[in-house]
Amino acid sequence: MEKRALLYEGKAKRVYQTDDENLVWLEYKDSATAFNGEKKEQITGKGKLNNEITSLIFSKLKKEGIATHFVKKLSETEQLVKKVTIIPLEVVIRNVAAGSFSKRLGINEGNPLSKPLVEFYYKDDALGDPLITDDHIEELQLATKDEVALLKEKALQVNEVLSRLFLELNIRLIDFKLEFGKDAEGNIVLADEISPDTCRLWDSNTNEKLDKDVFRRNLGSLTDAYENILARLGGPSHV
Amino acid sequence: MEKRALLYEGKAKRVYQTDDENLVWLEYKDSATAFNGEKKEQITGKGKLNNEITSLIFSKLKKEGIATHFVKKLSETEQLVKKVTIIPLEVVIRNVAAGSFSKRLGINEGNPLSKPLVEFYYKDDALGDPLITDDHIEELQLATKDEVALLKEKALQVNEVLSRLFLELNIRLIDFKLEFGKDAEGNIVLADEISPDTCRLWDSNTNEKLDKDVFRRNLGSLTDAYENILARLGGPSHV
Ligand SMILES: Nc1ncnc2c1ncn2[C@@H]1O[C@H](COP(=O)(O)OP(=O)(O)OP(=O)(O)O)[C@@H](O)[C@H]1O
Ligand SMILES: Nc1ncnc2c1ncn2[C@@H]1O[C@H](COP(=O)(O)OP(=O)(O)OP(=O)(O)O)[C@@H](O)[C@H]1O
Ligand SMILES: [Mg+2]
Ligand SMILES: [Mg+2]
Repeated sequence: MEKRALLYEGKAKRVYQTDDENLVWLEYKDSATAFNGEKKEQITGKGKLNNEITSLIFSKLKKEGIATHFVKKLSETEQLVKKVTIIPLEVVIRNVAAGSFSKRLGINEGNPLSKPLVEFYYKDDALGDPLITDDHIEELQLATKDEVALLKEKALQVNEVLSRLFLELNIRLIDFKLEFGKDAEGNIVLADEISPDTCRLWDSNTNEKLDKDVFRRNLGSLTDAYENILARLGGPSHV
Repeated sequence: MEKRALLYEGKAKRVYQTDDENLVWLEYKDSATAFNGEKKEQITGKGKLNNEITSLIFSKLKKEGIATHFVKKLSETEQLVKKVTIIPLEVVIRNVAAGSFSKRLGINEGNPLSKPLVEFYYKDDALGDPLITDDHIEELQLATKDEVALLKEKALQVNEVLSRLFLELNIRLIDFKLEFGKDAEGNIVLADEISPDTCRLWDSNTNEKLDKDVFRRNLGSLTDAYENILARLGGPSHV
């Protein structure tokens, strides 16, 4: 497999073409960003941690029968994935109120929700990724009604698998963000990453935050938190 | 009918108890506010205009078989309505992109939508009336799923009647906000007001704005615009 031209550079990853037109090469970067890019820092080791964690999680999801873009880990910071056309929606699943959701609706952070709740945000940096409704998705033609129903179903399925997986590791999955894409055959598959950058993960006993909130809220060492998650997932230690 | 104790004073109206426990007395004020109360002004005659316009519109809706709180106009600035428990949702119906919707989703103001779109905002001044989804409404227990479906149906029905009514007057109904409440028997009825404060109304030929945007955007005389609407509705002239 050969790494070819850079297709796209995001805040957290670079996407490269390969010699197979259906596959892309993802490279995880060492940069941390928050608040729509306003807060920004280089954090050595972060790319490696998120690549390792995402690779482990996507492998587990694959075993549970969930269709994903993941093919294989290529190096400490790189992985090979199916090339997809990303559906411009951030699909957020919440089990417990936290972050912007708490502020927006006046529900205290830490309050469990009566059932898992799915939200859609319009992936558009210039607009600041606004929350949108099913009717907005239809009006903007971001996805059809059937696709929205499918995305919700898949998101809740991923939530069940991940909540169980993390709970076994003494971690509560508070909320997380997913991205889906369409592969060459038009199938909708789970794409992008699942890492402490895209999940809220709290220690079940201490409520210690083991995710990007450590960076957002200046709560200590981001790499310590992410190392902790990777270790519990059974991944290679970085010390 | 006797006017009794002040129950609630809002930004645009005062609500008084009456000697009938199922009826309240609404008094329209002369104050104009926008941007969650940040911009504020006293405008002589505004209360009278909105009371006249709302009374005319609610009478027309009643004739079309739509259940509302409206009983009768009492004076130039006052009306008698059924007392209801307001459902804490602002129900917004949009026919054409404008205002916050345009900014939020990046759709140019003036672009017609493919079909009327209903949005719900959580009526909570402290939170700034955030846009919410059906699942948020369920989680916050603001209304049941069936009630949400009913609110959408009623809102679209009001939209059909009002769009037709205004078009006959050479006015395009761009978007508007409704509030619903539960009366003593538990019936959901249309409440609050329908006026140029709560609608976007554009002249069909010139696109001249004849609504609160005149105030929000400093486009000229608010009372001239509202007088224009009242005159077209066949109401009493104020000159
Ligand atoms: N399998 C895939 N095929 C194509 N693109 C993908 C795939 N998986 C993820 N991407 C996209 O790669 C891009 C780079 O990821 P990164 O997380 O750095 O983006 P970002 O800075 O968050 O920007 P964006 O707002 O576009 O997500 C993202 O747009 C992401 O959606
Ligand atoms: N039939 C009714 N019975 C009881 N309350 C009503 C009725 N119709 C409207 N109201 C309420 O009267 C209050 C005063 O109206 P006004 O428009 O001044 O409020 P506001 O400043 O917009 O505040 P709010 O955010 O509460 O709507 C509002 O809370 C409105 O919901
Ligand atoms: Mg990203
Ligand atoms: Mg009001």
